[in-house]
Amino acid sequence: MLKLHGFPVSNYFNMVKLALLEKGIAFETVTTYPSQDEAFLTISPRGKVPCLETEHGFISETSVILEYIEDTYPEHPLLPAEPFARAQVRTFMREIELYIELPARLCYPEVFFGAKVDEVTKSRAKGELLAGIAALKRHAPLKPFVAGDAFTLADIYFLYSMDLAVRVAQQLFSLDLLAGFPAAQALMDQLNENPNVQLIADDKAQSMSGFLAMVRERLERA
Amino acid sequence: MLKLHGFPVSNYFNMVKLALLEKGIAFETVTTYPSQDEAFLTISPRGKVPCLETEHGFISETSVILEYIEDTYPEHPLLPAEPFARAQVRTFMREIELYIELPARLCYPEVFFGAKVDEVTKSRAKGELLAGIAALKRHAPLKPFVAGDAFTLADIYFLYSMDLAVRVAQQLFSLDLLAGFPAAQALMDQLNENPNVQLIADDKAQSMSGFLAMVRERLERA
Repeated sequence: MLKLHGFPVSNYFNMVKLALLEKGIAFETVTTYPSQDEAFLTISPRGKVPCLETEHGFISETSVILEYIEDTYPEHPLLPAEPFARAQVRTFMREIELYIELPARLCYPEVFFGAKVDEVTKSRAKGELLAGIAALKRHAPLKPFVAGDAFTLADIYFLYSMDLAVRVAQQLFSLDLLAGFPAAQALMDQLNENPNVQLIADDKAQSMSGFLAMVRERLERA
Repeated sequence: MLKLHGFPVSNYFNMVKLALLEKGIAFETVTTYPSQDEAFLTISPRGKVPCLETEHGFISETSVILEYIEDTYPEHPLLPAEPFARAQVRTFMREIELYIELPARLCYPEVFFGAKVDEVTKSRAKGELLAGIAALKRHAPLKPFVAGDAFTLADIYFLYSMDLAVRVAQQLFSLDLLAGFPAAQALMDQLNENPNVQLIADDKAQSMSGFLAMVRERLERA
């Protein structure tokens, strides 16, 4: 059976978990935190989570895991079959990852862990975030899903990136990223009613104290 | 016929160009620089190049364009057919992009354009670069190609990311990224003997003065 390594507070872990749940694929989870320990680096070469344990070996990188799941479990597809439509969904995935999640991520130490992020980084993140949201607004159908009428991998990226980006923008820049973008807010509300999304949110809430204890322990060691 | 928009000094443009040449697909190029002009944003929503003009519309994001080409032109495949092997190649693509090209990119303004990059950014880029190279060294076969005995999309990412990363590390950190990594150096040398790679290098050399004139003109306007 597939084993998903990672932890329920990780947004990328939750992307893969939601894909597996939506496709109805049996899997186990193994609570694993990112680490530079040699033993972990043999299964995840950059020390990141999630990684997926398959009968053939481990796969790391969320987007790669998601494509692998599509390649091996074609039922309940989360990518369109037609190549151009498929490319559109993949473009949304990449735009959300590179231009929304990644700049927001630079600010997580300050927003979530009480550390301080330097002003240069924050200023760059702010500009990137605004441009990323503008790009999405420019061409994403959001009728009602990111790429149109079907739920796809683009919605999974949207759900687990936008919530964090909104929080970063609000807390650090006093900006409401979704102001003037009602279709995005409506989709977020709709996705949050999905029972699998709610299950993942419950797991996240239950795992939060363990996660924060791990972070504190690492900060004290550092 | 496919039209590839971008410019021959762009490493991501050259990734797509090499894939098209290696697969023997007919295409034209349209010299286009990144821009936030409204007209360009309608074809590339984040204002980036390359973008690919197809009979169905435009596709942006290099990795998405490369997957689209594989989906629509299966001859001379640059991704393995077997899903796990395919995932391994995609993991190398992502690792090279996220952990080598992306941190190096933060330093391009200082290395290539005479601007100044702040110390926080440079220090982060250095740490990321070293960890990215270590990850690749840890698990890439490089026998002789990144993922083993066949030339794949991972080699295209390798070729057009590593050269720039090496230059950044040398110029800013006095570090030889490939010291102690002879398999990577050997692959770089081998790839540079490929006639299509040489053709792309010639186009880059011929386009350099036009590119630099564009950069100067934009800096003066800014």
